[in-house]
Parts: sequence; structure tokens; C-alpha cells
Amino acid sequence: MGLLAPSRAGSAVADATGDGAYLRALLDAEAALTRAQSAAGLAPEEAAAVVTAVAAEPGRHDPGTLARRARAAGNPVVPLVADLTAAVAARAPAAAGHVHRGATSQDILDTATMLVCTRALEPVLADLARTAEALRRTAAAHRDTPMAGRTLTQHAVPTTFGLKAAGWRSLVLDAHARLTAVRAALPVQLGGAAGTLAAFHAYAEAETAAEGAPAAAGPDPGTRLLTAYATETALAEPALPWHTLRTPVADLAGALAFTAGALGKLAADVLTLSRTEIGELSEGSGGGSSAMPHKANPVRATLIAAAARQVPALAGVLYGALAAEDERPAGAWHAEWQPLRDALRLVGGAARDAAELTGDLRVHPDRMRRNLDATGGLVVSERLVAALTARTGRAEARRLLDTAARRTAEQGVPLATALRDTLPDQRLPEDLAPLLDPSGYLGSAGALVDRALERTAHTPQEPA
Amino acid sequence: MGLLAPSRAGSAVADATGDGAYLRALLDAEAALTRAQSAAGLAPEEAAAVVTAVAAEPGRHDPGTLARRARAAGNPVVPLVADLTAAVAARAPAAAGHVHRGATSQDILDTATMLVCTRALEPVLADLARTAEALRRTAAAHRDTPMAGRTLTQHAVPTTFGLKAAGWRSLVLDAHARLTAVRAALPVQLGGAAGTLAAFHAYAEAETAAEGAPAAAGPDPGTRLLTAYATETALAEPALPWHTLRTPVADLAGALAFTAGALGKLAADVLTLSRTEIGELSEGSGGGSSAMPHKANPVRATLIAAAARQVPALAGVLYGALAAEDERPAGAWHAEWQPLRDALRLVGGAARDAAELTGDLRVHPDRMRRNLDATGGLVVSERLVAALTARTGRAEARRLLDTAARRTAEQGVPLATALRDTLPDQRLPEDLAPLLDPSGYLGSAGALVDRALERTAHTPQEPA
Amino acid sequence: MGLLAPSRAGSAVADATGDGAYLRALLDAEAALTRAQSAAGLAPEEAAAVVTAVAAEPGRHDPGTLARRARAAGNPVVPLVADLTAAVAARAPAAAGHVHRGATSQDILDTATMLVCTRALEPVLADLARTAEALRRTAAAHRDTPMAGRTLTQHAVPTTFGLKAAGWRSLVLDAHARLTAVRAALPVQLGGAAGTLAAFHAYAEAETAAEGAPAAAGPDPGTRLLTAYATETALAEPALPWHTLRTPVADLAGALAFTAGALGKLAADVLTLSRTEIGELSEGSGGGSSAMPHKANPVRATLIAAAARQVPALAGVLYGALAAEDERPAGAWHAEWQPLRDALRLVGGAARDAAELTGDLRVHPDRMRRNLDATGGLVVSERLVAALTARTGRAEARRLLDTAARRTAEQGVPLATALRDTLPDQRLPEDLAPLLDPSGYLGSAGALVDRALERTAHTPQEPA
Amino acid sequence: MGLLAPSRAGSAVADATGDGAYLRALLDAEAALTRAQSAAGLAPEEAAAVVTAVAAEPGRHDPGTLARRARAAGNPVVPLVADLTAAVAARAPAAAGHVHRGATSQDILDTATMLVCTRALEPVLADLARTAEALRRTAAAHRDTPMAGRTLTQHAVPTTFGLKAAGWRSLVLDAHARLTAVRAALPVQLGGAAGTLAAFHAYAEAETAAEGAPAAAGPDPGTRLLTAYATETALAEPALPWHTLRTPVADLAGALAFTAGALGKLAADVLTLSRTEIGELSEGSGGGSSAMPHKANPVRATLIAAAARQVPALAGVLYGALAAEDERPAGAWHAEWQPLRDALRLVGGAARDAAELTGDLRVHPDRMRRNLDATGGLVVSERLVAALTARTGRAEARRLLDTAARRTAEQGVPLATALRDTLPDQRLPEDLAPLLDPSGYLGSAGALVDRALERTAHTPQEPA
Repeated sequence: MGLLAPSRAGSAVADATGDGAYLRALLDAEAALTRAQSAAGLAPEEAAAVVTAVAAEPGRHDPGTLARRARAAGNPVVPLVADLTAAVAARAPAAAGHVHRGATSQDILDTATMLVCTRALEPVLADLARTAEALRRTAAAHRDTPMAGRTLTQHAVPTTFGLKAAGWRSLVLDAHARLTAVRAALPVQLGGAAGTLAAFHAYAEAETAAEGAPAAAGPDPGTRLLTAYATETALAEPALPWHTLRTPVADLAGALAFTAGALGKLAADVLTLSRTEIGELSEGSGGGSSAMPHKANPVRATLIAAAARQVPALAGVLYGALAAEDERPAGAWHAEWQPLRDALRLVGGAARDAAELTGDLRVHPDRMRRNLDATGGLVVSERLVAALTARTGRAEARRLLDTAARRTAEQGVPLATALRDTLPDQRLPEDLAPLLDPSGYLGSAGALVDRALERTAHTPQEPA
Repeated sequence: MGLLAPSRAGSAVADATGDGAYLRALLDAEAALTRAQSAAGLAPEEAAAVVTAVAAEPGRHDPGTLARRARAAGNPVVPLVADLTAAVAARAPAAAGHVHRGATSQDILDTATMLVCTRALEPVLADLARTAEALRRTAAAHRDTPMAGRTLTQHAVPTTFGLKAAGWRSLVLDAHARLTAVRAALPVQLGGAAGTLAAFHAYAEAETAAEGAPAAAGPDPGTRLLTAYATETALAEPALPWHTLRTPVADLAGALAFTAGALGKLAADVLTLSRTEIGELSEGSGGGSSAMPHKANPVRATLIAAAARQVPALAGVLYGALAAEDERPAGAWHAEWQPLRDALRLVGGAARDAAELTGDLRVHPDRMRRNLDATGGLVVSERLVAALTARTGRAEARRLLDTAARRTAEQGVPLATALRDTLPDQRLPEDLAPLLDPSGYLGSAGALVDRALERTAHTPQEPA
Repeated sequence: MGLLAPSRAGSAVADATGDGAYLRALLDAEAALTRAQSAAGLAPEEAAAVVTAVAAEPGRHDPGTLARRARAAGNPVVPLVADLTAAVAARAPAAAGHVHRGATSQDILDTATMLVCTRALEPVLADLARTAEALRRTAAAHRDTPMAGRTLTQHAVPTTFGLKAAGWRSLVLDAHARLTAVRAALPVQLGGAAGTLAAFHAYAEAETAAEGAPAAAGPDPGTRLLTAYATETALAEPALPWHTLRTPVADLAGALAFTAGALGKLAADVLTLSRTEIGELSEGSGGGSSAMPHKANPVRATLIAAAARQVPALAGVLYGALAAEDERPAGAWHAEWQPLRDALRLVGGAARDAAELTGDLRVHPDRMRRNLDATGGLVVSERLVAALTARTGRAEARRLLDTAARRTAEQGVPLATALRDTLPDQRLPEDLAPLLDPSGYLGSAGALVDRALERTAHTPQEPA
Repeated sequence: MGLLAPSRAGSAVADATGDGAYLRALLDAEAALTRAQSAAGLAPEEAAAVVTAVAAEPGRHDPGTLARRARAAGNPVVPLVADLTAAVAARAPAAAGHVHRGATSQDILDTATMLVCTRALEPVLADLARTAEALRRTAAAHRDTPMAGRTLTQHAVPTTFGLKAAGWRSLVLDAHARLTAVRAALPVQLGGAAGTLAAFHAYAEAETAAEGAPAAAGPDPGTRLLTAYATETALAEPALPWHTLRTPVADLAGALAFTAGALGKLAADVLTLSRTEIGELSEGSGGGSSAMPHKANPVRATLIAAAARQVPALAGVLYGALAAEDERPAGAWHAEWQPLRDALRLVGGAARDAAELTGDLRVHPDRMRRNLDATGGLVVSERLVAALTARTGRAEARRLLDTAARRTAEQGVPLATALRDTLPDQRLPEDLAPLLDPSGYLGSAGALVDRALERTAHTPQEPA
């Protein structure tokens, strides 16, 4: 299903979110559950060992067949449990009763999803870190490279490419921080049929009763098992079963949408600055065209931009799924599965594209400079207003600049000339050249780059 | 990739939207283009025949490999054309130059997408027609079956199950009409590199020049080819190349979101009326639970409801992609691919689920009646207000009913008794029973069912 | 509440969607209902006259106060009916009982919303028609004005500004056609408490019983009243009450999202082509900056682009509201109110902005020409491939052009020179200049403009 | 503009987000900027005092007029600055030059928006705290109140109302934590025309030059001013100007969407449990109906549910706006204004509704118990499977229960009887009654409530 998804094709995140990866995680979740029951004294060790061994063989299950059989109950866990139970029974009949015992399908699918997210986010975070590091180098290298600052599509005043790159990096670090925090908190799921963990009590009691032994004293067996399950899966232990308390999924939604948008900002700028007429940046390996030999398309930026258009909508579906009725809902949960997976994939593809793009970005300071000069000085007119204000007052300064700027814009006369023509010389600074040099009007750009680069991936400055 | 998609698993629409189907459509689009050039006098017949023959063997291409190679140019057409050209060259070297000649990748991918949509919508429309027919039968059978009308979750006044089913059907017919209209208008795409069809002129001129022959007179070769391409693909001929005039995709978005929502209404009602406490409907083959033998879950309705939560967001992405810059955009187009495919799949799965659900729906008129009676007559209090208004005036009637209704609601006293206690008998109708019979207070329900059922799939009453 | 909405500030659509307009429409809906009851023989003519007269005085109601009182029942109709009834009672006590009789709040609010939409779409359609007409003139005037066709941000091959403008116009006409069709079908709402129209039967029966007269024969009084209500409001008559059959709202959602996107395409192009480095277009009255005298921002395009980012999401909410449970839902309906109003406003503002923008757009053919020439001939390299293919075969042609194009791109050598250097002269056409002239490589652009302009607002070529 | 917004009508958050509140915040932002310049040595103290005094009189500005004048430049700051400057000039001509000096419109509008958010979130957080406290009391009071646990709309196994309420509370606390963290980090905005703070340097230099004094040594004047501006506004100091680094807005989007969804979960459950047939909960002050005296609609829950349907879409627009090109974008920024305001309002209204709803919720344990008993014991069939498994093995236990459960479901025979009929007595426990008592099958519900209630608003257990 990758034909329409070049961004993630062949990537680590594509592997980590495929049907095979989900199947592996579902089996991991089942095996860990039996082990947790064993650790909590609710199942024999041998059962845990057998289930774990059988579950380690995902090759015996076919995702397509499972999907078709999933139609009956509406989720893939039901047919998978049937197959796993049969396979365990063939190996050790006594262990079969301990497969999935006491759990509900959602316990397993939610836990598997958290495992998939934990695993899939690893390459995503690595690609974001690579991107941030590439941008750190770029920002440092171009700390003082002047370029036109553009607002509402028009040249405004000069800025530096270093400041732009430092800004991109700050967004990438924000994304890294948000994903890291969410990932660290992804919880195991265990509640049983309706979130009370009652079946685990029932099996414990039934066995105790059958053995004629007194009921076990000590802590609540349900919450004890929850702790053991978290340990076995290396996921966080939730305070409550979260079948319809979907904080983890909503937090993933937000962090993924954020990341897509953060990379989308970078892509938007690269696309703009790569335009034929602007030419300040180009992708190291621009994509060619079958018909037009000269074209070097900004393909990585294009694919990132496409992802940034999609993820917010998927996140909206996931936020909408918070409003889930009952102890387990009819639809809201099912509506999470594909959007969460798709959001992971889109973000994973975009992160890889961003790492490649930033690792291989070609910067053209000469074009930056040529573009800065293209308006004949208008790009520093703000500075001249300031300089004249001290001499003529604000209103007059503004009026003079307006007049001169109009001539420059319409007739192409350099602003310096237009100003001399407009203004009695004695009120102009003697030497206009320094005032008109864009590279001398960079304000705090350098200082801002410096402070932005002090931040590392490990010192988030924003709430995560 | 179907493990998380039980709704569409194994369905015709799943086949029709898989990587294989897209690959087939891409090859169909290429072959049709060479044939169209031949028909328009821009390529030899033999080339058309060879390209068509070679393109009829999709087995030679692997979607996964194409996807990875698609990363370079950002779309799968570029590597596919390379492979197809090589395969044609191996068969007939002279024909190779006529593969994809003059076209741009988007011409092919857009045309292929329209072919996929045309094909995938066929089973969707069939499932909607099946659904509408099942609902016609249901509405007719239950034209006069009384049930509680519910508003803001509370019993309001009686309605009939026939009227509810007729309403569902009217939405299904609206969806059918919208999808049919959009499908009939899906256009072929052909514009060349930037939508001017210039390359087709260039090749025509170059050959003419090479042959020393005068340029062909007659109609514009570009638009002539557009007509021929529409003929070869059996798609509509657009007035203009639509690389960035995305009306067809936006119209699909709207019709698909509408369909998902229309089926979502049906599902929302089935879910509510299937609740254990309500029990008025049940799915013919409710999904079981591994742990709870008694459960018969409304699985089809659940999966439809899940689809209805997702498609509007995907449609939003597609509507957003209308705002595409330039002659071909960097991102907006790429952002359409998966959402359109996913919307088709979700709607296709939901339509199949709806056909199964409505074909096998179990209706429980006894529970409808029991629920109607559960409020001791409150469900017809509106009618009593009307009856008393004629005798006491509106304000007094409302006051009396308020008092009686409160006793009924709080103490469980039947409304008839509460009314007699509240009101001097002489002002009450002698026999309250007919007034209190919910099945006698159905208003125009029957007449509305009749007029709704007059509409067929072929006589849309709403704009499509 | 307009401070953050400059796009619509002071516009006709802002007036037509304000609280005052909704209040007026709610009162119109109430008055029309009493008149319809009178026309259907269910209320005296005098009552209709009094209710109509009192309802014609919206000044007696304060939206803010109504909103606060609307909290109790959750919608503004309940307190408004109380006030209207009191006002009618003060004028003619006997008429008071005929205010809102038999109706439910949703009958009135839905009908009022349809009236608001009908009224608000009038100026929107007018602005779209103005826009289409301006674009017709522009496309005709620039039918043969060459400019660079741009794909994935890079110059591809030449196109014409006429073709671009004709494309914008075709989208605007598509939007006009969709809105017109939807608007013409907007239906009146009438169903009573749960969509059966039962209360109207009840009141008819009660009065008949009180008068001792036999029940009226003839057609069903509920559907008869529905017809009369449609007549009185000049809205369409629905087949069924549509409290939870939300086709009209979904169709509005789609048409509004389409329109926002259609205008968004125009805005995206204007923003790109207005960039300082490109300079091919400028808005007639670009917005200034307080600090930078030279700036002329494309403000109209900016505000349209902002609208195009918002409406798809609002449409998504409206499509999502199709899945509404019961006879009247708890939330889905309430979630429609503001998004529909906001979508109308955003589209209305964007349509006005588009009319102003296109009516006053400044086109700079000299800059178009200069940009076309900026790549030293690369913009027609596709044509040279075609020309050489006839002489050298495709592979060799492509190889030669690749080599030459690289030199041109990297060293700035004109493509003609690079080609001569690369290729033994005898295989190049004697005079390369005509082949290298971008204005001679426009393909079917002119023919496409001509056929696009044949379409008028009254001859839609796409399904509406 | 509140007629369609009963949820927020008359609320503190409505006041805090109205045009008046924005106007006040814009003026606060301007005054603080002049004061910050004064504190940083860039403006005289008198100017700061005069600007502050004049800005404290918002009554002199009319939002409607400003909105119309905002059309020219596309934002309301430009006309507001003109008016403020004039008013300051009238009071103290020398101070006028210090109004807005060096700033760009976005500096002021972003800062004002952060002030509005800070202020508007205060009542929202208070309402969430009230809600959490009410739910704490409810959960404690009903720690052991049994009710049916429902999954996919069907009775599954018993749970407690305490556990449900504790779950609602945990979501409310999650929302409170996320909003609190985001609110504490909302930053001031200051960057000047293109984010370099250059104009502040220019004015400093110009004055220094005019005075013939040497340039000030010491820290960078731009970043120094940024610090001072944060101090004056009591907002956080950002590392970089964030004109196109929209982390604060995206974080608000996520936290607001989360909150709407969290409250939406509560509303979804209240709506379900308030259904006439279920009747386990009712709103303290259910909304009435004009026509049906018995109706007590769950209006608060309805309005919350409506909000939960809208906010995710608005959040999607805001996440989408992250991808903003250049130093200040043409559209992405403008597309944030209304959606952020609307999201605040919807969440604010929902939080108030939730506080009222939970503060006044009526719980009906008798109905909970009656519903639990309605399935004749099926609700504990899972427990019986467990009990029998110890005696018969799992497969046989499941088979026996399936048979018995089917009889119970279809014929209404109590499960105990059906089981005795199905099974040789010796294998059944002697006394089935304790096993069949739903209130004895609550698993860890009590323990889970206890651990959930240990969490307070100040000890978040989830990442914020």
C-alpha cells in the first residue's frame, strides 16, 4: 500500500507501522499479559513461557486473513486469540487457558498500539535530532548571512539566513520535546471487559475455591496485575484503565500534528526560497522531470508540505474520539486506529525527508544578496525613517520616505538618489551608504541566533 | 495493510483501491494516451498496439519497489514510465518513444485516479442501492409500527419505525444521487508540463518538419488529443486541463463525506436502539465477545459509525487542496492522494456494512411498544395539551398537564390517573383511553412514509 | 464581533448573518407558520395577521438577553416564543394561542437558518458573478500574454496569463453553479416534536371535537400544512421533515467549502505572482505598512487565503453532524449553528475580496516576459527535446539537452550557445531563435482560453 | 453575536473574548511596549506615562469602525495605532512618536492575543477545578454504587458509578494540567518588521547620533527590550520572535481540543445515562420543552457535546497554520484569529456547563440497580465462565454458558435457572446466588477509585 506514499516508502517508520509490526505488537501484548499474570501469581510460569514462545512466531498468522475474520467481532484481536490459543494448545494444552485470560480485545489492541507508537517514534525522534543538528550547523554557518526578510510576500527589512535556520531548529526541538514527553508516558492498557479488572479477580477466586485454599490476602489483585503488565511491556502504568479515557491517544495526536506543522514551516520556506526567481536555496538532490531536463524540483519539501496538510485533520479525528461513551465505545475507538497509524507514518516520512533535506541543503548567499539589492534600497527604508525622524520629526520623515520610495518603486531610481532629490541635503546624513547597506541593518539577528543555539534537545525551553 | 480495517477487509472496494488497482489504472492511462495520440494522428497505430499490449501486463511491476523509486521525483509515474518504456523498447524499439510522450506525471496519475474512482464507486453504488431497497421493504413493512420518538435523548411523542426507516432511505438515496452525478462527470486529465498541451504541438511540428511536410491544418492538435483521450479512457472531457482546478476531486470529497454521514445517521440510530435497555433493534449477526457469552454487539453499525467520524476530516484535506498555487503545486496535489483513496475505502466499507446491516436487521415491535408505554402516558402529553386547550385555554391546559406529568414522572402514577385527580372530570373528555393510546397519535407518519417511498434511486428529489 | 474579521467587516453578508438577521428570520419563520396554519384552515386569518404584524417588530427583542435566556432550554427559540406570545397577547389575546402552535423549536430555527442562507447567499453570488466577469475580461485581454508556467515552484514551460485567468474563472463559475443549485433547493422545516406533524392533527381534531363538527375530510392536514409553510416562506417543500436528515446543511457545507477553495486558488496564485522577486501581478490597492513606506501588501489575497484555510474544517463539522441520532439529536444539531454561520461569513468576505481584487488587478506583462527570459532558454527545453528527437532519437536528444541545460543553469550561458557548443551544427535546426522564443511555445493556450470563455454563469459544464 | 451560542452566553469567558476584551488587550500591548522602551532606555518616562494613560481609555475606539478600517491593511492594529497616536498627540505631542515605535502590527496583535488567552483561561480553569471537585465528591459518594458496565452499547459486566465519575475527573484534571502548563508559558511577541528587532536598534542609533553621544555599550538593545516587554506584560519571554514559529498557538490548540474532548466524554455518558429507558442520571435543571410538559432535556450535556464536535476542527486549522512561510505569512496568521477565539469560547462555555452539570447532577442508584438486573444475570456471565472453568475446563464452561445465556436472552429465563437446567448440579457451586450478584462482581473498582482520587489538580500524573 505504499504506491501513493513516496515520502515514507522503504523507511524505518513504514516498517514499524505496517501490518506485520502491528501483528508482532499484538502478540507481544498477549505474551506479556500471560507473563504478567504469572508474575502476579495468577498463572503458572510454564504457561507464560509457552505463550511467549508461540507468540514469538508471527509468521504463522496472515494479516489479510485475520482482517477478513475480524469483520465478525469488529477487531483483529478476536481471531488472533483463537489462532494463538489453538497454537498454544497444540504445544501445551494446559497453557491454552491462560491465553488472553481475563482480558478484553481492547486491552490487547491498545497495548499493542502503544508498543507500535513507542517503537515507531524512535526513528522519528532520531530523524528530528539529525534535522536539528543539521540546522544548528546551518544557523551557525550563516549567522551573519544577510537575506531579505519577507512579510505578506513582500520584502520588508533584511534578516539573516542564520536566524531563519535557527527558527526552524527551534520548532524542530519543540517537536522533539513534545514527542519525547508523550512517548515516555505511553501507558499499558488493562481493564478487562468493562475496566474493573473483575475477571482477574474471578479467575483468582475460582482457582482458590477449587483448591480449597483461602483467598489470597494482600494488595488488590487487579491493580497488582496492572503493575506487572506495565513492567512486562516496559510501558507506563496508568492510574486507571483508559478504554474511554483517551489521554494518551489525544496527546499523541497533538504532538504528531505539531511535528508535521513544525516541519511544514521549514518546507514552506524552502519551497518559497527555491522558486526560480528567488533561487536562494536548492535541495541537494532535486527531483528531475521526464520532459524538462532543467528542472530540479524541491521534492523533499513538497512531500513534507503534503504531510503537513494531512496530519492536522487526522489529529482532529483523534481529538474528536475523546468523546467516547460508556465503558468501551461503539465507533469512537475504532475511528482511532487508522488515523493514528497514518499520522505516525506521515510524520515519520516527513521527519526522514526533513533530515535528508537539511543534511543536504544548498544555500546561495549570492542570490540572497542580489535579491536584497533588487529593490534599490527600499528594503532598508524603515531604517531611513528612523534616521530622518531624529532630524525632521516622524510625520515629515514618513512623508519624505513615502515620496522617495514611490519613485524608486515606480521608476527604478535608487532610493539614495530619490532621497537626495526629495530632500534638502543638509537634513540628510552626509554619507547615506552605510544607512543603505542591508547587511548593516540586521538588528539583533546575530544575538538571537546565539541565544537560540544555546538550547539543545535536552534543555527544552517550552512546555512539553 | 488491512489488519486495522475490518470494515473493508476482503471487499470489492478494497480490491479496487489497492496498490494493484492503482498500478493497473496507471498503465491503462499510459496505454490510452498512446492510443489517443494514434487516433489523433500523432503516433503510429503499431506503437499504440504495442504499448497497450505491454501495459496489459501489470505483473511486471512491483508497487513496493516503484514506491521507493518514486522518492526521487516524488511520484510513482516517473519510475513506472521508465520501466514501461524499457519493456516496450524490448518488444518494439520504435514504439518506445511514444510512451508517455508529451505528458506530465500528473496527467497520468490524475487520469488513473479518475479510473480508480470510477471503478471503485461501482460496488459502492451497488451496496447503496441494496441498502435503499432493504430500507424500502423495512419502511413499508413497518409503516404503522409505533415507537417512541426521541429528542435530546428523551421520549417526546410517538413516531413509527417506518418513518425512521424511510428517513434513512432518503439519505441513502441522496448519497446515491450525489455519487452517481459526480462519478458520471469524472474527467480525463491532459495538459502536459504546464497545462498548455504544448509538447503535443512540438512533437507534431517536429515530425512534420522532419518529414518536410506542411503543418497539418485543421483543429488545434492539443484539444483534439484531449477529446481522443477522453474517448479512449471513457472519462469525461474537461474544458481545461485541471492540474490546479481541482473541481473533480472536491466534488468527490463532498459526495464521499455526504455518504459517510448519511450512513452514519443510520448507524447512530441502530446503535441507540440496540442498547440493552432499549432493545428495539438488533443486528442479524451481532458480533460476539470472547469473554461474555451473552453479548451480541452491533458491529456493523459500530464500523459504519467509525467511518463517519473519519471521512469529513479527509474531505476537509481535499477541499483544502483546492487552493493550489501555480500550474502544478508543491504539496497540495500530493496531499490528495491518500485521503481520497482512504475516503473511498472508508465509504466503500461502510456501504457494504450498511447493506449487510439493513439486509438482516431484526426489528422488535414488542419492545418498541413496551418502551412507548414506559412513561405511563407522558409520551402523548402533547396531545393532551392540545385536547385540553380547546376546553380550558392554552395556559390552563399547560399548567394542568405540568402538574399531572410531574406526578407521573416522580411517582409512577399513570398520566390518566394523575389527570383525573388534578382536573374536575367534566372538563376532561369522557374517555381518555383513545387520547392516551400512543398508536393513535402518529400524525402524518403514514402519509410521509408513502410519499417518501414514491422516490426511487432514479427520481432524485434533491439537487445532486 | 468584527474586530478580528476585516474580510467581512461592513459587508452585506455580515449584515445578513448577524444576530439581527437571525432574529428577523426567526420572527419571519414564526409569522409564516401562523399564516400557513391559517391558509391550511388551522388558524383564523386574524391570528395570522396579528402575529405577522407583531413579528415585524424585531426591535422589541434583544439578542444578548435572548441568548442568556436560551441557556435554559438550549436554544433561542424558547424565550423568543415566550416574548412573542406575550406581545401578541397584549395586542389580541385570542391570537396568542396560535403563536408557534404545534411546532418544535427546531422547526423554527432550521427554517430561519434556511432564510438566512437564502438571503446571505444573494450578495455572495453577486460577488462571484462580478469576479467571473472581471476574470473574463482579464482572460480575454491576456489571451496571448506569455508568462512562465510554474510547477513544483520551478519554471516549467511557458503558458499565458489568459489561460491562468480563464482557469480561475472556471473555478469561480463552478462555485457559482454549486451555490446556486444548493440555494434553490433550501427547504422549509416542519415536523413538530418528533417529525410526525402530529400536533397539527391534534389541534385540528381538538377544535373539531370542541365544535362538535365531523373531522375534516381531504388530504392529510400535516403534509397540507407543510406545503402551505413552504409557500409562505418561499422555501422548497421537503419530502420529509429533516430534523435529522441534514442533506440541506451538508450540501451547503460542500458548496461553501468549494467556494472558499476556488477563491483560495486565485489567492494562492496572486500571492505567488505578487512576490517582490516575481512582480507579475499587484493588487490595485495594496495594503500599506506603518513602518515600511515601500510595502504594498496583497491584502485581499491574504484575507481570501485565510478564509480558504478555515472553511474546510467548518464543513467537516457540518458533514460530521449528519450522523445525528434519534428524531432530534443532543449535540449534532447544536454543533451546526455557528460553523454554518461562520462558513457563510468567511465565504461572503472572501467573495467580496475576490471581486475587489479581480476588479482592480494590475498585470505586468513586462515582468512576465522578463521572468520568462530569466533562465536563458531553459523554459523551452522541452520543445528542444521534441525538435531534436526527430533528428537524433529520444535518448540522444535528452542527453544533449541535459548537458546543455546543466551548463546554462550553472554557468549562465544561454541555452542556444550551450547547445551549439554541445552539438555538431548540422543536426541542429539552422535558426534556433524561433524554437527558443517562449512566446512561440504556447501550445493550445489560446484555444483553451477560447473554449473556457464560451461558458457563462448560466451554462454550467460541471454537475452542480 | 451570542444568539446562537447559549453555552457561553453571559459567561466570564464570553466577556474575556469579546471585541471589547481584544481592544483592551491591544491597547494594553501598545502601552506596555512604550513602557518597556522607557525601561530599556529607548523612550522617555513621560511618553510611557502618557501612552499608558491614553490607552487606558478604550471607550474612545469603536470595534466596528476599526474593523472596517482594518480592511485596508488587513488587520485592526494599523487603524488603532493611528487613533492612539492622534489621541496621544493631542495630550502630549512629543509622546506621539513613541506610540508603537519600531513594532509591527503582529507584535501587538500576538501579544494582545496572549493577554486575552491568559485572561480568558482563568475562568475556564476555575470551572474545570469546580468540575473536578464536584466529581471528586461524586466518585467518593458512589465508590461502591454498582451499575452496568456497557461496551459497544451492550451490558458487559458490572462497574460502579464511582469508577465512572473518577474517570471523568481524571480527564478533567488532565485538561486542567494541560491548560495550566500552556497558559504559564504564553509569551510576549516582539520582533519588529521581520523579526530582527532592527528598528529598535535604528531608533536607538538615530537618537544617539542626533545627540552626538557614543553608541550605548552593553547588551543587545533588541533582546534587552524583549526582556523588558515580557516584564511589562507579565508574559513569558520567548527565545526568538515567533511571528512564524507558532508553538504557543499550536499548544493552545492542543490543550483546548483536549479539554473539549475531555468534557465531551462526560457529556456523552450523561446523555446516554439520561435516556428515558436508562434513567440512571438526570441533570439537576433539565431544560423544558414548550410543547411537551414532561420533558427534562439534558441541556448542559447537549451543549457540551456540541462544543466537543467543533473544537477539534478549529484546532486542526491552528495546527495547519504552523506551516507559515516567510518572516510573516500571507494568510496562515490571519487564519488563526477567529478559530483561536472560537475555541476559547467553546471550551469556556463547555467548562461552565460542566461545572453546572456536575454540581447539580442527580444520580439514581435504584435505576442503576434495576438496569443491572434487567438481563436476568447475563451481566455476570463472565464470572460464571471463570467459576465453571475451574470445574469443567474453559471450552466446556464457555459452551455451557453460551447455551444457558441464549435461553436467558431469548426466553427471559433467569440465568441461574437456565444454568441449573443445562448442567448436572454437582458441577455447579451449591449456592449460585453470590456468584450472580452483580454487586459482588466489581473487581478492582473500589481500589481504582481510591487511587484515582489521590491525584489532585496539583499532582498531575500525566505529562502536561
